[in-house]
Amino acid sequence: MKELKSYFEANKDRFLDELLDLLRIPSISADPKYAPDVRRMAEATAEHLRKVGADQVEIFPTDGHPIVYGEKMVDPKAPTVLVYGHYDVQPPDPLDLWDSPPFEPVVKKTKLHPQGAIFARGACDDKGQFFMHVKAFEMMMQQNKLSCNVKFMIEGEEEVGSKNLEKFCRDNRKKLSCDVVLISDTSIIDNQTPSLTVGLRGLCYMEVEVTGPNKDLHSGVYGGAVANPVNVLCQMIASLHDSKRRITVEGFYDDVEKVSGKERKAMNEAPYDEKQYMKSLGVAELMGEKGFTTIERTGIRPTLDVNGIWGGYIGEGAKTVLPSKAFAKISMRLVPNQDPKKIEKLFARHFEKLAPKSVKVKVTAHHGGYPVVVPTNSVEYKAAEKAMEQAFGKKPLPQRGGGSIPIVAMFDQVLDARSVLMGFGLDSDDIHSPNEHYGLYNYYKGIETIPYFYQFYASLKKK
Amino acid sequence: MKELKSYFEANKDRFLDELLDLLRIPSISADPKYAPDVRRMAEATAEHLRKVGADQVEIFPTDGHPIVYGEKMVDPKAPTVLVYGHYDVQPPDPLDLWDSPPFEPVVKKTKLHPQGAIFARGACDDKGQFFMHVKAFEMMMQQNKLSCNVKFMIEGEEEVGSKNLEKFCRDNRKKLSCDVVLISDTSIIDNQTPSLTVGLRGLCYMEVEVTGPNKDLHSGVYGGAVANPVNVLCQMIASLHDSKRRITVEGFYDDVEKVSGKERKAMNEAPYDEKQYMKSLGVAELMGEKGFTTIERTGIRPTLDVNGIWGGYIGEGAKTVLPSKAFAKISMRLVPNQDPKKIEKLFARHFEKLAPKSVKVKVTAHHGGYPVVVPTNSVEYKAAEKAMEQAFGKKPLPQRGGGSIPIVAMFDQVLDARSVLMGFGLDSDDIHSPNEHYGLYNYYKGIETIPYFYQFYASLKKK
Repeated sequence: MKELKSYFEANKDRFLDELLDLLRIPSISADPKYAPDVRRMAEATAEHLRKVGADQVEIFPTDGHPIVYGEKMVDPKAPTVLVYGHYDVQPPDPLDLWDSPPFEPVVKKTKLHPQGAIFARGACDDKGQFFMHVKAFEMMMQQNKLSCNVKFMIEGEEEVGSKNLEKFCRDNRKKLSCDVVLISDTSIIDNQTPSLTVGLRGLCYMEVEVTGPNKDLHSGVYGGAVANPVNVLCQMIASLHDSKRRITVEGFYDDVEKVSGKERKAMNEAPYDEKQYMKSLGVAELMGEKGFTTIERTGIRPTLDVNGIWGGYIGEGAKTVLPSKAFAKISMRLVPNQDPKKIEKLFARHFEKLAPKSVKVKVTAHHGGYPVVVPTNSVEYKAAEKAMEQAFGKKPLPQRGGGSIPIVAMFDQVLDARSVLMGFGLDSDDIHSPNEHYGLYNYYKGIETIPYFYQFYASLKKK
Repeated sequence: MKELKSYFEANKDRFLDELLDLLRIPSISADPKYAPDVRRMAEATAEHLRKVGADQVEIFPTDGHPIVYGEKMVDPKAPTVLVYGHYDVQPPDPLDLWDSPPFEPVVKKTKLHPQGAIFARGACDDKGQFFMHVKAFEMMMQQNKLSCNVKFMIEGEEEVGSKNLEKFCRDNRKKLSCDVVLISDTSIIDNQTPSLTVGLRGLCYMEVEVTGPNKDLHSGVYGGAVANPVNVLCQMIASLHDSKRRITVEGFYDDVEKVSGKERKAMNEAPYDEKQYMKSLGVAELMGEKGFTTIERTGIRPTLDVNGIWGGYIGEGAKTVLPSKAFAKISMRLVPNQDPKKIEKLFARHFEKLAPKSVKVKVTAHHGGYPVVVPTNSVEYKAAEKAMEQAFGKKPLPQRGGGSIPIVAMFDQVLDARSVLMGFGLDSDDIHSPNEHYGLYNYYKGIETIPYFYQFYASLKKK
């Protein structure tokens, strides 16, 4: 692959500049007021695909944000790779914690990224990662090295639950037919320890509203006589965990897969420095389910977190109000074989049952997603393993990821295609946080690795 | 008092218009961006005092919002009444729950106010009530019926804890020397059941900040391994009450005065319709300390309420964040003989002790205030009782109020003067809530009652 190497060296600065331009577009899918920017980002993505030689490039409208498609069919006998990614990003708040504006990318050196890292919302999740595929495709096209057919499907609603992707897949089954889905939206253990994600947690995301009195009251006149919905909500949330930090929702653990001692042992052999982990987070102690290690808690155990809470007076100073309502966003990460639809129902029933008569409770569900396990003995896994080994000089470790990419289970079901989760980020890249960044090393290493995947996948499939 | 009556009838429409003008000024003391409006309100108040004949009118600057002073000395041998009130108002949020804009007063009829009520922030608390004194003073001046010396002290920081009033009182002891402090900032039981407030709860208002990790994290990558400050805060808040809804802060009840069975029995004879009370609040059940009635829970028992809570993502849609910080404003209503300074310390110590090692906690105190009991056998109480009886045709009931006017205890201490709490609002007037209002009946009845007080107070003092 010498030709690719020299093409890469000659063009890498441009590869970076092009990514920086994409990072300047605030394609925040959760906030309706950014819809024009999301649209602009879809157009920029389509334009890039066209420029590097994809055919049939089209921006497909959905009920939400559009999906960008493009393809290159080189040989009807060659296997087909469907590249999935997303061009939308998380909201950047809290803004005041960013060291530089989230949509004005800068490259800065850090301890973990001595070659420099790109700081911007979306740098790692997922603009930097999906764009590696566009650039790897450009290299293969230019050097006539494309050994597989390629289809790109880059969506704009991953951060809000990929609401319209399933319908698009169902409606376009034939167009999207493929042998494997290739996704870069996960991380490696560290830059010296490549890894492939072989499991993802599922997600169940709920919103709750607790109503006490029908209006805000004076806490002096009514305090002590009327249930305060904030106090009640706190009590309800507190009761969602027991003293062992197990989740108390009835039936919650019924379908949780039991992981063998052998598998747990292997998992815990991954490099992990608890002191360094706590130091980087600034915490004096970790907190999690009793009887499990941190790697297990984030990999094979389900969890429940409040992602947001609000109610009453939250301005400056003091207001003696007994509020009418309190709200929380509560999400659960699920593991095989938990079903997010079933967990939604269990949670809603449990939460409604928890509520004292003195309040009313409304529970609604945001998006959810099924947990995923990737088999490590498949052709696609072996191709990815060899590709990373070639690029990093080291065989990647199989790793369970704590996050969720709900669409992986959907691809399996709707397109009958298995996914390869070959991401290049680091857990410390602050995705979903202020100062999100993505290492230049990682960006370039991804662009280098992807063509190897095509090469090995085509040759393994032929056998 | 016939002359006053006819002067009142001839001028009552103007009395209303003048109040409406004052209600148009958004004198929100808690929010620094309204400082110019607060200033404008102080000037308007001073101007009104001047216009009706007060001398020595002056706007005294403080480290916060200014205090308006004015006086009329009619006879060195007559007793002196110090009228206290406040021209600042609570923030109006949540704005979307107001039926009409909070600073554009409208008069509308309601079930409880068939003659009409003025809807605006501050209508009852306290612009409508302090301004009754200005108008009653005008009537007495015009008709040459002022039987006491009068001093007005109208401040602009009651809703933010009267931070600078004590210093002003200490610095101006002589200027403010008086026989009694007359305050209208409380309520009567209903328009058919006049009452005088003989007890007020104290206040201790705290703000807490819980910090988990040093930045917002992705709840998929870190969820289950790192303490979530929102979950922890909820747990801590939940634990502040036990199953009997008693407050668990160590030592909290140590100084609570035991109220005799006889007093409790008398208190519970006040008109109170629990069904109606629940209906008006839209709740299916009340919640409060076991073993006490609603009247007792809001009158003689201390309470703890969360006034505001916030943390994590509170925008539209779903964000899978494990937040770095969570916050709450928590206030306690205190009863005799609890000391707010002591309770602040007990709360802070308790809250800090509650925190697991996995988080950091910061506890700060906003303003506080001492609880108050007014003796019913004093000259000033008897004068107020007779004045109300004269105006309402019915002897007022002594009543313990749930709210706090922290400065009453301070007047006692610094000015060596007892206060009379002769307010004319209703508990249902939605002070501190959207759609605050004040009955025209109540506004006019107050203006009618106040001159009787002066008359009876002067004559009882002479004896």
